[in-house]
Amino acid sequence: MTPPPPPPPGPLVPAHHRSIVALGGGHGLSAALTALRLLTDSVTAVVTVADDGGSSGRLREEFDVLPPGDLRMALSALCDDSDWGHTWRDVLQHRFSGAGDLAGHALGNLMIVSIWELLGDTVQGLDLVGRLLGARGRVLPMAGEPLQIVAEIRGHDPDRPDETVEVRGQHRVASSPGIVSSIGILPTCPTPCREAIEAVGRADWVMLGPGSWFTSVMPHLLVPDLADALVATPARRLLNLNLEVHKGETRDFRAEDHLASFASNAPDLRLDYVLADPSVVPDVPALRAAAADLGAELVVAPVEARRQPGVHDPLRLAAALRDIIA
Amino acid sequence: MTPPPPPPPGPLVPAHHRSIVALGGGHGLSAALTALRLLTDSVTAVVTVADDGGSSGRLREEFDVLPPGDLRMALSALCDDSDWGHTWRDVLQHRFSGAGDLAGHALGNLMIVSIWELLGDTVQGLDLVGRLLGARGRVLPMAGEPLQIVAEIRGHDPDRPDETVEVRGQHRVASSPGIVSSIGILPTCPTPCREAIEAVGRADWVMLGPGSWFTSVMPHLLVPDLADALVATPARRLLNLNLEVHKGETRDFRAEDHLASFASNAPDLRLDYVLADPSVVPDVPALRAAAADLGAELVVAPVEARRQPGVHDPLRLAAALRDIIA
Repeated sequence: MTPPPPPPPGPLVPAHHRSIVALGGGHGLSAALTALRLLTDSVTAVVTVADDGGSSGRLREEFDVLPPGDLRMALSALCDDSDWGHTWRDVLQHRFSGAGDLAGHALGNLMIVSIWELLGDTVQGLDLVGRLLGARGRVLPMAGEPLQIVAEIRGHDPDRPDETVEVRGQHRVASSPGIVSSIGILPTCPTPCREAIEAVGRADWVMLGPGSWFTSVMPHLLVPDLADALVATPARRLLNLNLEVHKGETRDFRAEDHLASFASNAPDLRLDYVLADPSVVPDVPALRAAAADLGAELVVAPVEARRQPGVHDPLRLAAALRDIIA
Repeated sequence: MTPPPPPPPGPLVPAHHRSIVALGGGHGLSAALTALRLLTDSVTAVVTVADDGGSSGRLREEFDVLPPGDLRMALSALCDDSDWGHTWRDVLQHRFSGAGDLAGHALGNLMIVSIWELLGDTVQGLDLVGRLLGARGRVLPMAGEPLQIVAEIRGHDPDRPDETVEVRGQHRVASSPGIVSSIGILPTCPTPCREAIEAVGRADWVMLGPGSWFTSVMPHLLVPDLADALVATPARRLLNLNLEVHKGETRDFRAEDHLASFASNAPDLRLDYVLADPSVVPDVPALRAAAADLGAELVVAPVEARRQPGVHDPLRLAAALRDIIA
């Protein structure tokens, strides 16, 4: 009647014991983690903590905690591949409907905040939720305190298309109709997450992206201790380029512009591989040259979901990453 | 880093495999369950679903579900006696503070409602939370739909002490300054909880109380199918009398008045034992006679917590119940 939760089964494919750290946030990171959990039993997600919209934004404001939403999504992506893991993933991902006080909150966000209040330790709390899910890996925040994204945006006010203004807040930046010219975080030197720094230092591979470029991928490079760790690690470094490089925050960008943006945000950081879907590489030599400028080899492989344009297919992404890692 | 939750250890005392069903609600039921889990590995709690105050009341109103609070407390009381069980109990019992939208909600209530929305099955949902906690037993609702308590109360309006009025809602009844003269439920013939009826039918023992007399203990007797099952079961039947028989909803009652109230709410239901703390029995022969009228033997044993007047001590209660059962 009340059996204990089943222990996690073994890995789905013969285990690589490579330690892989995936940096990002939101749905992009979830796709990367869903792929990586097929390739190794040692995944660490290092997750943006700058979200200030929706359920996360409300909780962050009310309880002065890290925004839990991206952390919850990363944990859910790593859930054990069993009835137990899937059920608790679905419970965590459950969002209250209606128009009442709870509407829009994901249960997992409320659970994570409760556990933080109870344990008083961010990482211990995330580890506990990971145990609940039988998570195949660990989820850590990219900093020990909530961050604010600060962007210089040209044309933020559509009536003044040539004016550049400072826009604060991930939600406002991500939904701006303008063009981001540069990005920063506040505080500029946040409390690091020690465990994330250590994971990067011990990793065999670190992978950035995919994800909203300026609000989920670049912020990691702006946390000084984390950026230093990324530069210093002996790990191989891979950048998963986005699929819709020219949409959203990076409207009118080409793939090469992403790499230029990367270089300007992390001048000392070299890459080993840039992985791009063929759809974003109309000019292979140009992108190969841009990658080479960062020290990286360009790998072009199909990673898009067949029926969901703009979305990474976890199995194709896993195949492409396996070919690179192997 | 991510070990599976540990399996529940064996029972704390040599297992009695007696099947015990405990009926009640709130803190009284929690105390009974905390005691019973020491005595058997087969406890079933059958819990009131008439609460309409606080976090439960808000959720009941917003999502049209059973009020989860008493169910959550019962599950928490049955949690596995391990770090895992205690931690998740504490997470479920965590209550949001502050003055925001979430203030006052217990996380466990939100979790239970989410799981109900997800699974679409009340009992399956409670069983899942029980598995999370490694609960030593099962928690079931006393009916399949939320109930409303309806009471005839004399002196509900302090300015009209002799007037009897109908008062609806557990919260209003429990906090009325008047004297409850009779009690009912709406709907009068609610959907039964099949699993609860079956548990009563299979039980070796059924135990009622302690708990708020009119809003946590008596309501079970007003659910027709449950009352019939209590009458028909071959189980022994025990009533745990309250400690402060003369306070709250039963102001100025004597222990004998509780038994008279019991008889009037369940004329066909016989008892085998009435357990009372010495503090509520100034007149042993009178209470013994009242118990005998119900077919029951009176057992007087100290069950009060030493430093918390009015609160059952789970260990003393366990000792008294063991002596009766053995």
